[in-house]
Amino acid sequence: MDKSIGIVETQYFTVAEPPAQFELESGRTLSPVKLAYETYGKLNAEKSNAVLILHALSGDAHVAGKNSPEDRKPGWWDMMVGPGKAFDTRKYFVICSNVIGGCKGSTGPCSVNPATGREYSLSFPVVTVKDMVNAQRHLIDHLGVERLLCVTGGSMGGMQALQWTVSYPDRVRLAIPIATTCRLSAQAIAFDEVGRQAVMADPEWMRGEYYDKTFPARGLAVARMIGHITYLSDESMRQKFGRDLVKPEYGYDFLTDFQVESYLRYQGDSFVQRFDANSYLYITKAMDYFDLSQPSGSLRKELSHAKAKFLVISFSSDWLFPSYQSKELVSALRRNYIDVAYTEIQTHYGHDAFLLESETLTQLIKNFLEYAA
Amino acid sequence: MDKSIGIVETQYFTVAEPPAQFELESGRTLSPVKLAYETYGKLNAEKSNAVLILHALSGDAHVAGKNSPEDRKPGWWDMMVGPGKAFDTRKYFVICSNVIGGCKGSTGPCSVNPATGREYSLSFPVVTVKDMVNAQRHLIDHLGVERLLCVTGGSMGGMQALQWTVSYPDRVRLAIPIATTCRLSAQAIAFDEVGRQAVMADPEWMRGEYYDKTFPARGLAVARMIGHITYLSDESMRQKFGRDLVKPEYGYDFLTDFQVESYLRYQGDSFVQRFDANSYLYITKAMDYFDLSQPSGSLRKELSHAKAKFLVISFSSDWLFPSYQSKELVSALRRNYIDVAYTEIQTHYGHDAFLLESETLTQLIKNFLEYAA
Repeated sequence: MDKSIGIVETQYFTVAEPPAQFELESGRTLSPVKLAYETYGKLNAEKSNAVLILHALSGDAHVAGKNSPEDRKPGWWDMMVGPGKAFDTRKYFVICSNVIGGCKGSTGPCSVNPATGREYSLSFPVVTVKDMVNAQRHLIDHLGVERLLCVTGGSMGGMQALQWTVSYPDRVRLAIPIATTCRLSAQAIAFDEVGRQAVMADPEWMRGEYYDKTFPARGLAVARMIGHITYLSDESMRQKFGRDLVKPEYGYDFLTDFQVESYLRYQGDSFVQRFDANSYLYITKAMDYFDLSQPSGSLRKELSHAKAKFLVISFSSDWLFPSYQSKELVSALRRNYIDVAYTEIQTHYGHDAFLLESETLTQLIKNFLEYAA
Repeated sequence: MDKSIGIVETQYFTVAEPPAQFELESGRTLSPVKLAYETYGKLNAEKSNAVLILHALSGDAHVAGKNSPEDRKPGWWDMMVGPGKAFDTRKYFVICSNVIGGCKGSTGPCSVNPATGREYSLSFPVVTVKDMVNAQRHLIDHLGVERLLCVTGGSMGGMQALQWTVSYPDRVRLAIPIATTCRLSAQAIAFDEVGRQAVMADPEWMRGEYYDKTFPARGLAVARMIGHITYLSDESMRQKFGRDLVKPEYGYDFLTDFQVESYLRYQGDSFVQRFDANSYLYITKAMDYFDLSQPSGSLRKELSHAKAKFLVISFSSDWLFPSYQSKELVSALRRNYIDVAYTEIQTHYGHDAFLLESETLTQLIKNFLEYAA
């Protein structure tokens, strides 16, 4: 059996068309608001088989398959979505949309503001995870899905999944937050802030007004390099690179000596080809602002209205969103007598494990979908 | 009793004056080579009470006391050096010099090259930890000390202490490497490299030729911010900052929201007032190159000639140079039947603990100096 979903087309849905306004958590409004999204599989007659997948910082609506036969790589979670896979497209109707604030087809800082005819840049309002989820809810309405079978995602995708369970408790049956947290730690905020500072220190950034000029590539590359270190683990970097050199001897200069340097520079340079610098600022800020324990300050209280069954998954070597943060979530759910299964997967891959540990994730998620649903 | 050492004067010693050349590990030579240094206490008649303290990345020769009554702060390890302290200046003759490649009085990239009349900038040769220690050996000769009672330091200071025990085994009785490693991990190299990229991405850096122009402050500030996160721990940042805001509400902009952001920006901004951007490149490169297991590739073999007694100290929450790296050192020493005591101090302070855990360090070091000597 061919396990790939094949060719998929990105679609677009307008959440709010002027004069309709989309209200944001900050109190500001935005219009128009467009979402890029993809779907895989078919919605059944009962409309009970819809799975909403939420993407992480640098992800997009393109989860699985290819957009054209020439595409070099499939979507970012192809390992999980397709015929016979964890989210089996013969059984489930899978949906994913690019977040607002993003740069992959949904309305964001690089979109043209119809009021000025120019890109929003920093005049784009700061959006939150709650705003992202609110926009997705409009899309789900549009697709005719009253109640989602499942919401899931890793990292910021997990935050959106959690937000769904408290913003729209009646519309989610199952939630699978992976490698995520209910609120960023000071350390994680610090890494985000340094990344933003690196972008904003680039003189090409020009307070965000670079769209018809030179892209602030060096600043964004440094930000991505910082981020990338936090997605791996000490152990996985040791196994993958150790102290291996690119040449037989030290260069005694400031070019590239170590394999790990070469790898990071490649990651930085390739990222700037595919991501917008202002979106990087907006999306990291949305992650920093995410705090499921607000407004009351009590995580238990805020989760008390959730009605979904949960499968919480963390990774032993994830030091960006460490397991103790998933355990806090599990504990708050249990104190509300909410049905929750928790697994910490033993792995060296660090935070990135949600994109790599396909076998273990597939087994856990298949079982959960079959028995919990 | 006044526990401060009082007013101390920085002194200078010329290691190599033209035509004498100082030979470097890279095969290049350097001349003149000057060291800035300070001493505390008095060398006894037997010349048996000299303690050499080695500084970390951003340190200098000024370990304790003040250089003038107006100084706001004392030296960087004042908690450890002075009358009655761990390195009791009533008993020991304490020496510290700024490393070559540094910017605090010793010859480095910001020194003037007499051949050109201009600062070296990137024409300064890349120096190694072995080179730093070789220069210190000349200073020790100059001070009339045949055999050091003790070499010690934290972080890169610990690397120099280790290098002393293998470069000059007959000249060291005791070694106390703290919060250090025999070789940087891929992750630590990665953080150094991103810091260097941040400096070099600053257009004011101008390939190092900025001395009569604008200082590349923004790039160096970003590098320092990255470094600073690695010196703390997740736990210490949670305790110190948590998610505390600088204002009552989110700003919904890209100014400062969280206390941790404000702290990091302050750290970055104050660092650029006191440190040279090119020195940052050279010293981090020296740390990356440090590998005590070379040239043979066997740490056990390279340590087999060491004759000092060791007290190895690591910190439980240090994730930059984690305890497992100190344990590798201890294990390699023990396989050589070298006398070694090892302590992992339980602390939340992370790598910075060597500058903070004064009580525990004082007790351990006092005992070691008294009983092992």
